[in-house]
Amino acid sequence: MPVSPITFFFDFSSPYAYLASTQIEAIAAQHLRDIEWVPMLLGPVFQATGSKPLVDQPLKGDYARIDIPRSARYLSVPYVHPDPFPLATYQAARVLIGLQREHPAQAVPWLHRCFAAYFTHNRNIAELPVLDALAAEQGLPADTVARYTNDPTIKAQLKANCDRALEEGMCGAPFMLVDEQPFWGVDRLPQLERWLQTGGF
Amino acid sequence: MPVSPITFFFDFSSPYAYLASTQIEAIAAQHLRDIEWVPMLLGPVFQATGSKPLVDQPLKGDYARIDIPRSARYLSVPYVHPDPFPLATYQAARVLIGLQREHPAQAVPWLHRCFAAYFTHNRNIAELPVLDALAAEQGLPADTVARYTNDPTIKAQLKANCDRALEEGMCGAPFMLVDEQPFWGVDRLPQLERWLQTGGF
Repeated sequence: MPVSPITFFFDFSSPYAYLASTQIEAIAAQHLRDIEWVPMLLGPVFQATGSKPLVDQPLKGDYARIDIPRSARYLSVPYVHPDPFPLATYQAARVLIGLQREHPAQAVPWLHRCFAAYFTHNRNIAELPVLDALAAEQGLPADTVARYTNDPTIKAQLKANCDRALEEGMCGAPFMLVDEQPFWGVDRLPQLERWLQTGGF
Repeated sequence: MPVSPITFFFDFSSPYAYLASTQIEAIAAQHLRDIEWVPMLLGPVFQATGSKPLVDQPLKGDYARIDIPRSARYLSVPYVHPDPFPLATYQAARVLIGLQREHPAQAVPWLHRCFAAYFTHNRNIAELPVLDALAAEQGLPADTVARYTNDPTIKAQLKANCDRALEEGMCGAPFMLVDEQPFWGVDRLPQLERWLQTGGF
């Protein structure tokens, strides 16, 4: 019987999603699971939960500025807090969706490239020229970014991803599903791993 | 040179604080640290952060109802979600403050008793008769709860604890300080432990 993938909902502007993205593949591989990467936008989630970006919240913002880089050090993952933060990620997400459709082997490298560009090299992935440069560095055709960011069916897919995330109960990023069990946050990876090891606990 | 204690800010109505309260003593003991338990009320923190109890938040509430008992199972800690939840804990906190002042050896047992009464036996620790019963079960003098809950200097101390928590940047419970480094949440205990092991990372 084929096992279901780990579903990984994320917004490219989430540092905790970035951190989790560096860990989840090893966990999935160990348990012979695939990963279904679902790019989405946190805006609708903030709207639904009555929340806003962590760094814009009193007290929580100050804590996040300590906790995010410390969590990166804890996981031995490089991290440089970017500026501006957060930023609009729908263009980067659309490119990912385009690659998932047409060049699946290029999709995960793009995902890691965008996260690393933003969270370790402070490259502004909201800007199309930056995305063009990243695409070129990955060896993608020159029209990749323009084509995917303007494709109405890709725009619709991104919207559908957001709707699906909300339907699944996503309340923050990263939000992961294992056999319909939800895990929110890079700090839930140990529980997610226990779930995979034990088949649920 | 004497080392500083681990400061543990909590509200008796926080399930994650309850879970952390069952773990922190072993961690502290291993690293020869004392614990400074600081009862406070989450109300002012919610006001400061523009937040509200987790279970009252759309999506986050649904997730919390899955995550809290699962986190308890993950830690092998008994947990029965209480009803009503959350509830007012200033009376239980005042009794703790009174014991901390006058009968320090009774304080930590009271703390664990209140948490266990609420989160494993669904006893309503907002009600004075319940607190009286818990005090009797602990062998405390019959007037303990009445005396401490009506003492104006204890009321003032609880208020001071809340003010101090906010000054230290508390954004949710439990909130712990190790050598001025803040850790929020039972899920940060692994980082707190690493901090103690390494002297900071």
